Amino acid sequence: MPAAGPVHEFLRALPLVDHHCHGVSTADLPPGRFEPLLTEGGAWPGVSPFDTPVGVAVRRHCAPLLDLPRHAPAADYLARRSDLGPHEVNRRFLTAAHVEALCVDTGYTPHPGTSPAELAGAAGATAHEVVRLERVAEELAARGVTAGAYAAGFRAAAEDAVHRPGVVAVKSVAAYRTGFALDPERPAAAEVTRAAGRWLARGGRLTDPVLVRHLLWTAVDLGLPLQLHTGFGDADLRLHHADPALLTDWLRLTAGTVPVLLLHCWPYHRQAAYLAAVFERVHLDVGLTLHHTGPARARAVLEEALEITPFRKLLYSSDAYGVAEFHHLGALSFRQGLAGMLQARVDADELSLSDALRIAAWTGRDNARRLYGLPENDPARD
Amino acid sequence: MPAAGPVHEFLRALPLVDHHCHGVSTADLPPGRFEPLLTEGGAWPGVSPFDTPVGVAVRRHCAPLLDLPRHAPAADYLARRSDLGPHEVNRRFLTAAHVEALCVDTGYTPHPGTSPAELAGAAGATAHEVVRLERVAEELAARGVTAGAYAAGFRAAAEDAVHRPGVVAVKSVAAYRTGFALDPERPAAAEVTRAAGRWLARGGRLTDPVLVRHLLWTAVDLGLPLQLHTGFGDADLRLHHADPALLTDWLRLTAGTVPVLLLHCWPYHRQAAYLAAVFERVHLDVGLTLHHTGPARARAVLEEALEITPFRKLLYSSDAYGVAEFHHLGALSFRQGLAGMLQARVDADELSLSDALRIAAWTGRDNARRLYGLPENDPARD
Amino acid sequence: MPAAGPVHEFLRALPLVDHHCHGVSTADLPPGRFEPLLTEGGAWPGVSPFDTPVGVAVRRHCAPLLDLPRHAPAADYLARRSDLGPHEVNRRFLTAAHVEALCVDTGYTPHPGTSPAELAGAAGATAHEVVRLERVAEELAARGVTAGAYAAGFRAAAEDAVHRPGVVAVKSVAAYRTGFALDPERPAAAEVTRAAGRWLARGGRLTDPVLVRHLLWTAVDLGLPLQLHTGFGDADLRLHHADPALLTDWLRLTAGTVPVLLLHCWPYHRQAAYLAAVFERVHLDVGLTLHHTGPARARAVLEEALEITPFRKLLYSSDAYGVAEFHHLGALSFRQGLAGMLQARVDADELSLSDALRIAAWTGRDNARRLYGLPENDPARD
Repeated sequence: MPAAGPVHEFLRALPLVDHHCHGVSTADLPPGRFEPLLTEGGAWPGVSPFDTPVGVAVRRHCAPLLDLPRHAPAADYLARRSDLGPHEVNRRFLTAAHVEALCVDTGYTPHPGTSPAELAGAAGATAHEVVRLERVAEELAARGVTAGAYAAGFRAAAEDAVHRPGVVAVKSVAAYRTGFALDPERPAAAEVTRAAGRWLARGGRLTDPVLVRHLLWTAVDLGLPLQLHTGFGDADLRLHHADPALLTDWLRLTAGTVPVLLLHCWPYHRQAAYLAAVFERVHLDVGLTLHHTGPARARAVLEEALEITPFRKLLYSSDAYGVAEFHHLGALSFRQGLAGMLQARVDADELSLSDALRIAAWTGRDNARRLYGLPENDPARD
Repeated sequence: MPAAGPVHEFLRALPLVDHHCHGVSTADLPPGRFEPLLTEGGAWPGVSPFDTPVGVAVRRHCAPLLDLPRHAPAADYLARRSDLGPHEVNRRFLTAAHVEALCVDTGYTPHPGTSPAELAGAAGATAHEVVRLERVAEELAARGVTAGAYAAGFRAAAEDAVHRPGVVAVKSVAAYRTGFALDPERPAAAEVTRAAGRWLARGGRLTDPVLVRHLLWTAVDLGLPLQLHTGFGDADLRLHHADPALLTDWLRLTAGTVPVLLLHCWPYHRQAAYLAAVFERVHLDVGLTLHHTGPARARAVLEEALEITPFRKLLYSSDAYGVAEFHHLGALSFRQGLAGMLQARVDADELSLSDALRIAAWTGRDNARRLYGLPENDPARD
Repeated sequence: MPAAGPVHEFLRALPLVDHHCHGVSTADLPPGRFEPLLTEGGAWPGVSPFDTPVGVAVRRHCAPLLDLPRHAPAADYLARRSDLGPHEVNRRFLTAAHVEALCVDTGYTPHPGTSPAELAGAAGATAHEVVRLERVAEELAARGVTAGAYAAGFRAAAEDAVHRPGVVAVKSVAAYRTGFALDPERPAAAEVTRAAGRWLARGGRLTDPVLVRHLLWTAVDLGLPLQLHTGFGDADLRLHHADPALLTDWLRLTAGTVPVLLLHCWPYHRQAAYLAAVFERVHLDVGLTLHHTGPARARAVLEEALEITPFRKLLYSSDAYGVAEFHHLGALSFRQGLAGMLQARVDADELSLSDALRIAAWTGRDNARRLYGLPENDPARD
């Protein structure tokens, strides 16, 4: 039975803007290929990835969309998913997510996977693109560039990337590459050239601290909203280096420039909330976390994330990747969690109903519309 | 409707001791001058500071005290506030706070603002003063002192400041100036002289790590309870440097000396609770946080803060500054949050009612009375 | 009245495996000798250790087992405890804990106190032993060893210690000695010899960072599950150095080797959950915390600890030490907290009942059985 109350009804009807997500696989995902996509840890021998909070949530909330009973066994789920095929599965979950716009990080995509247009098409939404700057730098290095030409070449390549139609933001995974305990200052040109020389000689991923700083400052120059991975992610991370509080000095130096979007944040969402409360350009979401905890904990996480956060500063994202289930589950967790929190406050007379509905519309849709300049009337839905 | 139950009734009737607060503005605060005082981030163009948890709480819980309906629009609130004038507004909120004593940090005060006596007068409470040591040092530097005379001069100025009538504690904002990742040892005299030489030549705020350490050790020598800002504050902070766990080595070195009061603490209130649980002289509050979250989250924050904290170690403070609303809202959030928590435990038979009432009286009043040596019978209320 | 519902009933009936605990005192503990064992901070003049969350929980949940009313006064509790004598008191609480197996850390034991066999005998459970590696190293140093023979000597002594019957795991308190901000690499032989030379000349506890790293890598070589103290403990700790996220690089280097058990974890249990979610061999518990918070907060802590933790990765431990009350209280808090959480999810149809019961059996018993190779049919209970 769906939870009752006008805030729940309002959020069920509200088309969301998912301001940070990824494509989904277009391959058939038979048993053994689906499970590794379920968790940030992948699949381990002898233990089912379904025996996790996210696995329980998939069996509870995704199985019915595949015509299975709630809490269907994992084996049934996998078999039915395989029977329906990726096109139908993706269509069902993406439609169920009920989003009007998707901002798709194209720097990390399953193969074979959807393009932003395909993803949005399946969802009945409009597609927007988020350019991952580390990928721009690594593609430049792969094409060949001299150390002395790196800085200008990266800037030009980034400009080219963001001036393509549909691009609304850039993203950095500096959290993964160096963490945020960086010198916050813009690196000098000579320093960048030396660092580029070292990197181009060595090859591999962009992990040089000078070049990561240079990337973050180039993002400021580009003028678009900057999405930053913070907190929770996969095993490649040093979690404590992804605490967004470590960005404080850099945020102070870049105050008055581009909007900064702190993604995921958990378990440092209170630190992110502090930054959003005191720095004008800082915003946050708790994407990724919401489908990994499932609706059972989404409200608790949102309550913490919103303890002191200005209501124009929280956005919705799924950070869904690979399996379309996460587009549905992220949206469902956000809607149920936020509605549970707001409706309880209305019921306790801590919040008026009209304020609750404004907060729901802002965080679910309008903050993202405003920040990324998305059209108010989504033609795809008219 | 007020929440029911004997713990709620007891806390509503209990006069609190607010062991750390500031003066309030005595100026008229028309629209545009009130809003920047509402948040730790100030006011930003295009976004109302009322669209925050604290703004919602003000419209819900403060509007009725200005004869407005609950959840009154911000514009109505500001207009009515302006109509009533600062004297009447301050009187209403300070009376509603129902405190018997106020310990006022006089190192950070709005202009024009209340003196401690004026603040306490409006509240029907007794006034006590907390001396901010950074201000003592900076006033000494402004008056002129040689580097060689700095250490003795600061000690003498601090002694003078704390021996004035009504002074019950000292305070440091080391968290803002250097953070707590300091060498915990008392600096040698020669080191202090050298550092003072550098600072006096350069001027500005006291941010030298040696002098901040010297200030903290001078606080120990003074023998009064020492209040330390930790955790949540404004944009001037590096939040992660204000984690009170960073004080561990210093707390160990100063064990058996002065009581230490960890102020605010959020989001590191569990770390503060650990320190209070294992170090005899360490106490904590969750002031500032309680009015910024409002009653909607006060219980949740208090539940975490009290998970392992001995019940003689938690105190009440508002940390109200600038607007009298925060004196009311802090007290209300504390009372409702604590009563909600304790009453639920009584109802679940996890706690006896008499224990619940003792804990309420201790944390709301008696722990502060004992720590600061405040009189038990408050003459102002008899 | 006990909480209702099939998950509560199931967990009440389920014999737990307590995978990390200590012996209890076999001395009479009259007033003045019992209280210091109640808290991690010990006893302080003028403040009763009973005026804490754990003290309240003891008076509520332990008093009835001594034939006293719930919430009995501390004085009555102490008197009755003394009257019954340690043998009877220990028997009552250990029986009430209803455990089938106890893994006892023999490196830290009250004097006089129970042996593992005596502890398990009183509990009607089987005894297993956990070897504390710092103690092995310190005993080797006390017996006398040259610096050059230290590495091989420690390895041999550790092998001897773990090959005794009943040993199922090793433990390190590196969190106390150096914290986890260590070079993660295995130290070179020459480095170990030099460090051993310094330590053996100086004496005292093993706190040298090279030797602590060497100890952790020796644990990997031993091949047994490795228990690591993380988070909450006594005043000897630097809490922030015990954040398990600091272990990330070491966990990456040792991936595919021994199971790692992060003990206690609070207030970094979400960080521990992240590690358990992304590293195959990492597991966690929230022992120690559960009896210090008591049942009033056990559910809240478990909810956070299980937000993203795979259900095969959480274990039960009491970390009880000194007083038998904590064996009972830890088990009770775990059972009530977990049952409260799981039953609520079943009631909200977020979880099927059969899944809830599987999760309860795994975390309360079967994860530990599997990890330590404990027999499925406990002969002591048949």
